[in-house]
Amino acid sequence: MAKLRGNAVIGQSGGPTVVINQSLAGIVRASKVRGQIGKILGAKNGVRGMLEGKFIELQDIFDNTLEAVAQTPSSALGSTRDKPDEEYCRKILEVFRKNDIRYFFYIGGNDSASTAYILNSLSSKVGYELRTVHVPKTIDNDLAVTDHCPGYGSAARFVALALMGDNLDNKSLPGVKIDVIMGRHAGWLTAASRLARQEPDDGPHLIYVPEVPVSMQQFVNDVFRVYQEFGRCVVAVSEGIRDTDGELWAKKAQALLEQDAHGNVTLSGTGVLADFLVAEIRKHKPHIKRLRGDTFGYLQRCFPGVVSETDAQEAYLVGRDAAVFASERGKDGSVAIKRLSNGDGTYKIETFMTSLESVAAKTKELPQEFCDKAGEIKEAFLDYARPLVGKLPKCGRLF
Amino acid sequence: MAKLRGNAVIGQSGGPTVVINQSLAGIVRASKVRGQIGKILGAKNGVRGMLEGKFIELQDIFDNTLEAVAQTPSSALGSTRDKPDEEYCRKILEVFRKNDIRYFFYIGGNDSASTAYILNSLSSKVGYELRTVHVPKTIDNDLAVTDHCPGYGSAARFVALALMGDNLDNKSLPGVKIDVIMGRHAGWLTAASRLARQEPDDGPHLIYVPEVPVSMQQFVNDVFRVYQEFGRCVVAVSEGIRDTDGELWAKKAQALLEQDAHGNVTLSGTGVLADFLVAEIRKHKPHIKRLRGDTFGYLQRCFPGVVSETDAQEAYLVGRDAAVFASERGKDGSVAIKRLSNGDGTYKIETFMTSLESVAAKTKELPQEFCDKAGEIKEAFLDYARPLVGKLPKCGRLF
Repeated sequence: MAKLRGNAVIGQSGGPTVVINQSLAGIVRASKVRGQIGKILGAKNGVRGMLEGKFIELQDIFDNTLEAVAQTPSSALGSTRDKPDEEYCRKILEVFRKNDIRYFFYIGGNDSASTAYILNSLSSKVGYELRTVHVPKTIDNDLAVTDHCPGYGSAARFVALALMGDNLDNKSLPGVKIDVIMGRHAGWLTAASRLARQEPDDGPHLIYVPEVPVSMQQFVNDVFRVYQEFGRCVVAVSEGIRDTDGELWAKKAQALLEQDAHGNVTLSGTGVLADFLVAEIRKHKPHIKRLRGDTFGYLQRCFPGVVSETDAQEAYLVGRDAAVFASERGKDGSVAIKRLSNGDGTYKIETFMTSLESVAAKTKELPQEFCDKAGEIKEAFLDYARPLVGKLPKCGRLF
Repeated sequence: MAKLRGNAVIGQSGGPTVVINQSLAGIVRASKVRGQIGKILGAKNGVRGMLEGKFIELQDIFDNTLEAVAQTPSSALGSTRDKPDEEYCRKILEVFRKNDIRYFFYIGGNDSASTAYILNSLSSKVGYELRTVHVPKTIDNDLAVTDHCPGYGSAARFVALALMGDNLDNKSLPGVKIDVIMGRHAGWLTAASRLARQEPDDGPHLIYVPEVPVSMQQFVNDVFRVYQEFGRCVVAVSEGIRDTDGELWAKKAQALLEQDAHGNVTLSGTGVLADFLVAEIRKHKPHIKRLRGDTFGYLQRCFPGVVSETDAQEAYLVGRDAAVFASERGKDGSVAIKRLSNGDGTYKIETFMTSLESVAAKTKELPQEFCDKAGEIKEAFLDYARPLVGKLPKCGRLF
């Protein structure tokens, strides 16, 4: 098979992560050494830059610059929330044709996989040969097929550390503390708070995820039960927590909420849900003294230095392999991770290509083996998550 | 002078920090080797434990346990918000007398210095010889006399890193982002966000502290001016930000606010202020697209691993020197830090004792040389803060 010759374009899309530039570096390094790839164009702000022809040439980038970028949080090329339709993609293809772009790498979540799928289908239809590879990235860890998603391990590490610190804070000044964590549809990130628990009386004492709805009555009762047992209660709640009628609790608390460009309710970047939950507890249990709610917000996805080494390495790997699969094996698809072994020091993975269709617009929720009851995350989740998050500090205590 | 013989008590008070247990370890280690000190009693939950006689014996603690505790965030002995009056202190003295406690070490902020002052005056009045030392601790950095406060450097490091990440996040998905940072009366912690700015277009583009009031009109205009220049705007705001009429902006936004036991408005542990500021900007500039507000909340004071090495060392030092000053030199007072030199690699400090009265219930605000205009922190602050916070990562960028 003759290798496809032409230029490459790389885009980054959706919410940034602390390791998303590792994937960029992986693609650039692996593409640079392949003779069939000419220019390596970084599109500014994802598909938006492809549409408008805003590119940064990366084929001659200095290695130390690329390394500095790789270690810097958030999309170095800029990102976008644009979700292109076929018409939008048709225009992008024109720009690709004009710039002889034959390799398209898109780093992002399931929306980005959809974009890649539309563009790939369209290029086939019009007979423009284009290698299309989606490179997985999301702190939400909710992509289908892959065992886990680059970006998740580091954000999960942030959440685990944050809850570890918050549990100690709450232990020193007892009360009820509600922490709202990102995760609109899936509770993977919130579940990671479970890693913070080192002793039986440690928080988070309760963990609520979107997969298992909870009524306000039960929520308040759960909190009060723990408060009576330990004299305090730390609660981790997904921003996507739902009532038993299926409605978002955030929607019920929405006085100040806005809707984003896609008609989604804005869940992050507002403290409304946490304040609402605190107010509900205060209403039903007015004698509980210290009641506080924090919303972790954007800190959890881009905090410099709070990085899982495994996550950083894997983010690089999926980028590198995207370029290898596309250029050497002529494959389109989404790079996925398969876990080969787990447990003490035996954690090992390999990458493979899955179809764009199998990832596009799909969401992978927490399975029942990890969570089947409101307020609890099961032990099995810990085995899954520990290698991704990396070693956590052991807390010292006097009582 | 004959050395005072007896037992020692240590308490921790107020909001915890990530290095407060270093001070505890410093006191314990230095006390253990002094023959005139018998038992070393850790009081559970500060003065509350002293009142109720709830002590943990620390004189025989294993060194590796103490080291693990020293490296763990948040008050290992538990904390309290109690602010004892003379009657409360009289009862504590009875407990001291019963337990032959002759050394009283209290790790905390200016409220703790007040407690130490009251207890010290009372013990003199009733002729009970008691060495009383206040050991400084506060992320707010607002204690009088001392150059800076243990606990500040690490919290300031958290804030600087958080803003560094948030600036990159905002650069990738441009919009207006408001970050609310702890600091009721003084803007030291919020000012530390200035350290995040590495390039002229980096955020935080605007920084508001309690010392320099700002009208909503000017706030909105400032944000809009930056947004027009850079297409985005990252704002760091103290929770104690005030209107030009002297009123807290948080008070104006207070629908969900509660008052704590001392009649203070609760500023942390609620997203109300951030949501209010976002709503104000939306009201006046409805065409600005991505508008978000995050409240850093309790994360900034107890995050495991985000520690300034200098801060950790100094927290240990003030603890150790408290024990040395009290037991060897027979001194009462508050341990303070004097900066002997600064600048590239020349940063050096020494500790000294200042009177309890000079620290009790006083607040040190940001001086005009660091901030004299709403929205700006001056260069001079960076020289002050850099050695306390430690080296920060350098961000890589492609544009």
